[in-house]
Amino acid sequence: MSQTPTIARLNTRDADFDARLDALLAWEGVSDHSVAARVDEILAAVRQRGDAALIEYTQRFDRLTLSSAADLELAGERLAAAYAGLPDAQRDALSHAAERIRSYHEQQKPGSWHYEEADGTLLGQKVTPLERVGIYVPGGKAAYPSSVLMNAIPAQVAGVAEIVMVVPTPDGVVNELVLAAAHLAGVHRVFCVGGAQAVAALAYGTESVPRVDKIVGPGNIYVATAKRAVFGQVGIDMIAGPSEILVVSDGGTDPEWLALDLFSQAEHDEDAQAILVTWDAEHLEAVHAAIERLLPTLERAEIIRQSLSRRGALVLCDGPEQAVALVDRIAPEHLELSVAAPREMAEQVRHAGAIFMGRYTAEALGDYCAGPNHVLPTSGTARFSSPLGVYDFQKRSSLIECSAAGADRLGRTASVLARGESLTAHARSAESRWQR
Amino acid sequence: MSQTPTIARLNTRDADFDARLDALLAWEGVSDHSVAARVDEILAAVRQRGDAALIEYTQRFDRLTLSSAADLELAGERLAAAYAGLPDAQRDALSHAAERIRSYHEQQKPGSWHYEEADGTLLGQKVTPLERVGIYVPGGKAAYPSSVLMNAIPAQVAGVAEIVMVVPTPDGVVNELVLAAAHLAGVHRVFCVGGAQAVAALAYGTESVPRVDKIVGPGNIYVATAKRAVFGQVGIDMIAGPSEILVVSDGGTDPEWLALDLFSQAEHDEDAQAILVTWDAEHLEAVHAAIERLLPTLERAEIIRQSLSRRGALVLCDGPEQAVALVDRIAPEHLELSVAAPREMAEQVRHAGAIFMGRYTAEALGDYCAGPNHVLPTSGTARFSSPLGVYDFQKRSSLIECSAAGADRLGRTASVLARGESLTAHARSAESRWQR
Repeated sequence: MSQTPTIARLNTRDADFDARLDALLAWEGVSDHSVAARVDEILAAVRQRGDAALIEYTQRFDRLTLSSAADLELAGERLAAAYAGLPDAQRDALSHAAERIRSYHEQQKPGSWHYEEADGTLLGQKVTPLERVGIYVPGGKAAYPSSVLMNAIPAQVAGVAEIVMVVPTPDGVVNELVLAAAHLAGVHRVFCVGGAQAVAALAYGTESVPRVDKIVGPGNIYVATAKRAVFGQVGIDMIAGPSEILVVSDGGTDPEWLALDLFSQAEHDEDAQAILVTWDAEHLEAVHAAIERLLPTLERAEIIRQSLSRRGALVLCDGPEQAVALVDRIAPEHLELSVAAPREMAEQVRHAGAIFMGRYTAEALGDYCAGPNHVLPTSGTARFSSPLGVYDFQKRSSLIECSAAGADRLGRTASVLARGESLTAHARSAESRWQR
Repeated sequence: MSQTPTIARLNTRDADFDARLDALLAWEGVSDHSVAARVDEILAAVRQRGDAALIEYTQRFDRLTLSSAADLELAGERLAAAYAGLPDAQRDALSHAAERIRSYHEQQKPGSWHYEEADGTLLGQKVTPLERVGIYVPGGKAAYPSSVLMNAIPAQVAGVAEIVMVVPTPDGVVNELVLAAAHLAGVHRVFCVGGAQAVAALAYGTESVPRVDKIVGPGNIYVATAKRAVFGQVGIDMIAGPSEILVVSDGGTDPEWLALDLFSQAEHDEDAQAILVTWDAEHLEAVHAAIERLLPTLERAEIIRQSLSRRGALVLCDGPEQAVALVDRIAPEHLELSVAAPREMAEQVRHAGAIFMGRYTAEALGDYCAGPNHVLPTSGTARFSSPLGVYDFQKRSSLIECSAAGADRLGRTASVLARGESLTAHARSAESRWQR
């Protein structure tokens, strides 16, 4: 019996390359019927019975003892205390990250605009923040303070009036870093609830938890299924798949750096995907050797090994042009261009969530503190979606004001088209403003 | 037995006002399990069997006789011929509308941006168009050429390389205006398919129909259910509910104009919603009288009567401030501010899809040719979503390039935070770039 290799080796010249790459990339999202049925039941219960159902589920799933729904909320002072109580190095790092994330996102803020036509008709678009937003933060082992910053700060920059965070605290365990991040990021209220019941509370509102306009943030399959189910009732962000990185290397970067970059993605979980593409065969060998050499030294070696063997690959291609074509085919969440002229190559790339340019730009910097958001489109959805941003916490209203002359001019066109669609009340409404 | 009134009369001072308004506004979207099951079956069939399944469903549902999938596609010359063959008035009106929609949407085009920090670190965001987009256009009685313009032109302005339109042609009936609009709006390919099978073909691709990155456009419950099901595989726009208008009047606008504006919304279908809010009791009576007087003169009087009696209302409120509060509570798709100082009132409004300001600005002008999009958030979703726009056909990629000094500085922060999250491969990847 042959041993499973640490990581697959592919060559674009192999006859089965396309099939093997497709198999590696294949990922089916949420689609379990039994999960959907349980989620539907939870959503309906919280919608109908509010706090009572929310308390029951939280007692059952998180093993908490609650005397009332008020027990579910953490006071603002608790968040401030968590921040004040951090070791200096962590407090400094967290606020350095928050400050950088904030200043990057300030650049994203679109403004309202309008213009006037010769006859005095005004057209424009007004941009306003959402009023209330819910942020889901996973509890337990995947409780990431960086995720709190990345989800809450864009909402804060957008001007959202009330940011409501939900975070499960199984067995009452809270994560001080998560609370400190919430304090820094301007979260207004925190409720210790999770799962589909937390999504239901945010979508429909209960006596204690206010109904929000949009729900963002990562979660397990119950959370993802619940978010998909309430989509329309409230806005949601994308349903995230496993995290991925695609590294393009021209052979000039230290193979150990690249091995660590691949590991940093693979350590997230067994379904995470780390792929290296290069046209330098010797370099590919060197990265492979670095992987084998460094892997045993890592705390999360077992997860990394599984992730690399299931979904990782080292791909040898013909040259930079083919590498860019592979990038666009994969449309990766994270793209590292570890090449001599990364800006030129980035110009060529059409589909990627975030592009990390140059040998020094480890993807991990973007996860924490470079500034851009780490909530990025996964599983090829960078073809049609964008990093989480300020724009996700704002909405637009069209503005139209016709002058008397404009109403006449436009009304004549509208009348012809409305009659062409047999919508004669539309036509008559337009015609009523014609000038005699 | 009392006769059903043409339209309900509400007063914000009535004890049951909130309950009655909530009942009027209540709308449950797609949630029929038997529809979902049939849609799932169609999606799976088209995904697995491609053209063969697409042909079978189209023969069955649209009663077409097809010898091959090639029969499903209309040639570009067919669209050009439809445009050339229109009566002059229609051709002029359609191109006037297209030109205005195009110039408004040109204003929405966001640009890429970046900035450099003192140590040479570059941060930015790159905006690129989607590559291929699918536009669903309903066939039969609800075939609206204006909808083709409103969906396709923003995609064209965004720079989408391939715009693919699907439109069912039951019994082979095509709508010349729809084809002419497709020609004008720069649609690249047209397939005569509809329903869930058309959504499946666009989402998964078949031998004939190319897979797209996003699907937009209105459709019946099968189309809406299918779009919701493929969300994630491809992008989709919002799932639209029935169309609505909220008219706020200060009493100074001709009651007949306002009656016609309400009718123009109500004539869409029996579920459409038309509400008038005013603080002028005499004016409310006058609008009510105009409704009763004009209703019998309309071609679609029966639909209007049903829509007004089921979901319409004339609301008397205390004054402009309360009217604005009602607007924000309803978050209407279309808002007419038929008042003396509409710009001031529009400033106060937080939630509305499109705001039509002043006595001359009939909502129907916005449906066809004012310039802004007529695809707008319905059923209160203006709280968190926006008119269809150029931004829906573009996506963003974050750009990060760290200088050696920047990688060191950021790497120190990232290392602390990564270790705080027990993600030590992240930490080591960041640390590998520290300067010695």
